[in-house]
Amino acid sequence: MNPTRIVIIGGVAGGASAAARARRHSENVHITLVERGPDVSFANCGLPYHIGGEIPDRGELAIQTPAGLRALLNLDVRTLTEATAINRQRREVTVRSLADGTTTVLPYDKLILSPGASPLRPPLPGIESPRIHTLRNLEDMDRIKAAAAQATSIAIIGAGFIGLEMAEQLHALGKQVALVELLPQVLPQLDPEMTRPLEQALRDKGVRLILGDGIKSFQPAADHLDLVLKSGTTLPADLVILSIGVRPESGLARDAGLELGPRGHIRVDPWQVTSDPNIYAVGDACETADPILGQRAAIALGGPANRQGRIAADRIFLGEKARPYPGSIGTAIVRVFDQTAGITGWSEARLKAEGVPYLTVTVNGSSHASYFPGAETITLKLLWSPDGRILGAQAVGKDGVDKRLDIIATAIRGRMSTDDLAQLELSYAPPFGNAKDVVNVAGFAAANIRDGLLVPVPELADAGAQIIDVRPAASAARQPVPGARNIPLSELRSRIGELDRSQPVFTICQMGKTSYFAARILANHGFDARSILGGAHHQL
Amino acid sequence: MNPTRIVIIGGVAGGASAAARARRHSENVHITLVERGPDVSFANCGLPYHIGGEIPDRGELAIQTPAGLRALLNLDVRTLTEATAINRQRREVTVRSLADGTTTVLPYDKLILSPGASPLRPPLPGIESPRIHTLRNLEDMDRIKAAAAQATSIAIIGAGFIGLEMAEQLHALGKQVALVELLPQVLPQLDPEMTRPLEQALRDKGVRLILGDGIKSFQPAADHLDLVLKSGTTLPADLVILSIGVRPESGLARDAGLELGPRGHIRVDPWQVTSDPNIYAVGDACETADPILGQRAAIALGGPANRQGRIAADRIFLGEKARPYPGSIGTAIVRVFDQTAGITGWSEARLKAEGVPYLTVTVNGSSHASYFPGAETITLKLLWSPDGRILGAQAVGKDGVDKRLDIIATAIRGRMSTDDLAQLELSYAPPFGNAKDVVNVAGFAAANIRDGLLVPVPELADAGAQIIDVRPAASAARQPVPGARNIPLSELRSRIGELDRSQPVFTICQMGKTSYFAARILANHGFDARSILGGAHHQL
Repeated sequence: MNPTRIVIIGGVAGGASAAARARRHSENVHITLVERGPDVSFANCGLPYHIGGEIPDRGELAIQTPAGLRALLNLDVRTLTEATAINRQRREVTVRSLADGTTTVLPYDKLILSPGASPLRPPLPGIESPRIHTLRNLEDMDRIKAAAAQATSIAIIGAGFIGLEMAEQLHALGKQVALVELLPQVLPQLDPEMTRPLEQALRDKGVRLILGDGIKSFQPAADHLDLVLKSGTTLPADLVILSIGVRPESGLARDAGLELGPRGHIRVDPWQVTSDPNIYAVGDACETADPILGQRAAIALGGPANRQGRIAADRIFLGEKARPYPGSIGTAIVRVFDQTAGITGWSEARLKAEGVPYLTVTVNGSSHASYFPGAETITLKLLWSPDGRILGAQAVGKDGVDKRLDIIATAIRGRMSTDDLAQLELSYAPPFGNAKDVVNVAGFAAANIRDGLLVPVPELADAGAQIIDVRPAASAARQPVPGARNIPLSELRSRIGELDRSQPVFTICQMGKTSYFAARILANHGFDARSILGGAHHQL
Repeated sequence: MNPTRIVIIGGVAGGASAAARARRHSENVHITLVERGPDVSFANCGLPYHIGGEIPDRGELAIQTPAGLRALLNLDVRTLTEATAINRQRREVTVRSLADGTTTVLPYDKLILSPGASPLRPPLPGIESPRIHTLRNLEDMDRIKAAAAQATSIAIIGAGFIGLEMAEQLHALGKQVALVELLPQVLPQLDPEMTRPLEQALRDKGVRLILGDGIKSFQPAADHLDLVLKSGTTLPADLVILSIGVRPESGLARDAGLELGPRGHIRVDPWQVTSDPNIYAVGDACETADPILGQRAAIALGGPANRQGRIAADRIFLGEKARPYPGSIGTAIVRVFDQTAGITGWSEARLKAEGVPYLTVTVNGSSHASYFPGAETITLKLLWSPDGRILGAQAVGKDGVDKRLDIIATAIRGRMSTDDLAQLELSYAPPFGNAKDVVNVAGFAAANIRDGLLVPVPELADAGAQIIDVRPAASAARQPVPGARNIPLSELRSRIGELDRSQPVFTICQMGKTSYFAARILANHGFDARSILGGAHHQL
């Protein structure tokens, strides 16, 4: 029997999706949407871009207003209203108006929790300074935009997705930007070597990059704030953006006795049902399945939140016919000036930390046919299990990174193998793609490793003494590989006598392709030949 | 045991790939590459773009020279040399030099045929005119480029991929371009309604589009050629490009008694082996599997040719370890001025002609977040079998078409379902993709059809009498839908009494989303409500 009263806590991505989907199922159900902030259904992923002016019109970010949701979806929208308690036995939620403090009790047949996650604010000395901001909603955005207009120097703490977007956008406003990250790399979701082009892009633009350092304290000065770092460095800033991560807003659920995961996320089944069959949870506050390795995952991203909201509503109205949520693989992407980087599935660092057996290769390819104007190099790292199943991928480059990530995200969802990647038939005309796309090439390389044709060397630092740079002499001279001797590929067969057969030969080139060719020649002549992955483009 | 002599007939995509891959397997095998033309391994997909000047440097198209292949791959390259006969019993190929007419007999252990396909030249009156050109190789390109420089008016016969690329490029040179197509649409590989934006783009640029008409004869005039069309129209042109299709160059194989398919393509097994175990065939001249419906297919495209060449060489050297070619799904794409269109898998027309049961939906989405500058609309048509497996897709739009086709091409390769599409976790940040990408939306729509939430109307012409335009009044007035009454979505609930319950209601909007919302409201109020797919954007 269909419910007559649905209450939804949280009116942005997951909550708004659940409300809309529920209304498609029924015109008769009363749907109450409770939101603590003044806004519903806004484009939270767009906030940095309005601060930087790339989205000039603030109105673009308000996908729906409360009045719009009332008119289009016939919702009972209650903004500036906080849910304070759930009475599971009586199926009631108590909500409090932030405007006048009055409390109301809302009865429900089904309750959907979409409270989201809130930015971390660690209890550091000086953290209460009004110069320190986090970015979660339109109000935060407005405050930061106003403060940035008065600021000359801005420090961003945390170089994850939001930190990087903010660095780019605040630089675009002409600010002196410093980016501080506790780990020795930006974008810690990715393996470190894949983030180097982002770091270079930041440095090239004049962003001060402080890696492997954290905040000890914030010291107020007359007209600015001094950030005292763990290294002892003092970094003055007019404005500080804190973007070091989020924690799930699961207090309401916890207080109601709902089951939580180890890091405080609300536990749900594949239909987003919590440990109480009348309560659902969606979005950043809940746990989900990791379909790649069968573990649990918590992914704070808009795409999963939207789809989970839809599934919760389907489960309520379609029952057994509703399709389950298959879990999240964590596909994510960020643009940093002219570079784009992203990930789908597991990183090498995570696989290593969990002791999961894997293989990996890194290849370069062209965003579209290299003979057609505008082609840019994409570096693609692929990770797979010993049985060939794809576990993850990372890509970085100036164009076409999103497409390659999406192709591999699709392949992961389909539990496809590296051989499947090799044989993907992707769209090819010179302005788009390649006869052998970089995704195919990654699949070829994986097959070559399995078949013993490619002995890969992931890092130049791992190479032994005999490194041969097989690029043309001019390229090798322009950008020398430390410790390498130059023998261009075209001369390799005739100069093979110059090499020492008693020790391995490590070949390197510009893109990692010619070095493979060279290693094949040498291996077929009886050498222990290994190819340094990604070439000088990736290694230097 | 490894072969000692490999002969390859045809030195472009498939042949060059086979040669390169064979050399990676062995330094000891003698590889002879026989090519009828003067060039090997050139970028045949790039030819139109050098004619139009978008690839200014001709040298970019010569990926490898014969001398380069000799130096890098130690190949015995014989250009301007034609294979005239195969003696299968003696394992010998007879080749003839086009330079001096001498013949040579080349013994082989393994023979790889990569002869390609040649442009059709139907025996029409006047076809021998030197003003009529086809485009296959660099020599053709040079001839057309020289002739175009002297021409004012150019007629292109055949509006497939090459015809469309040539129309765009010759228009860029400032020529008066007419494009003649026998069928009543451009790009006959796609369903007609998906090609409308291309036709509009051509007309907007001033290309004269003559659809549903063919050539009766070519009549030489003093300083031009008159094309007499079947309709009676006479079309004068200084230069004619014939691009009506290709036929496989399988004469050598046929004369040698190799098994051919119904349309003259060389029959091969999944490892590219012909009916003679020592002869392989790859590329445009051979048949392959259709992995979608288990039929045979012949796909004249560069990607498959390259991968087949690799597989033939792997089979020769790796034997049982070599992975089979999984067949071709026919992914293809074309840019026509600011529009891009493409296909992967089966079209509706083909499914209908073969009597294969299918379902279909057409949706619109945005190339990236609609609130971020530069977003363009993508129209995506999805086809699937009653059990949910994806059979094909077509897309058209100004940006991001290649990405969506590649995602679905990957899903087809993985035999994935529409529910899988709904749950794809694609990369999303405002400059890239969407929280709910158009690919997800197509999956949602398929689920809605299955679950009875969406009753789709593919064509406005199929709608009954009661059509309701649910756009805001201003939009509806600006671009009226013939026969429709305007009731904006926000007024629908209060004005529901104005509708006639005794007959179906057909809803339409701008993009096909709001009309679905409206149909859900009406259906939940007991109406027979159906949504017209793709909205005014697609239908008008």
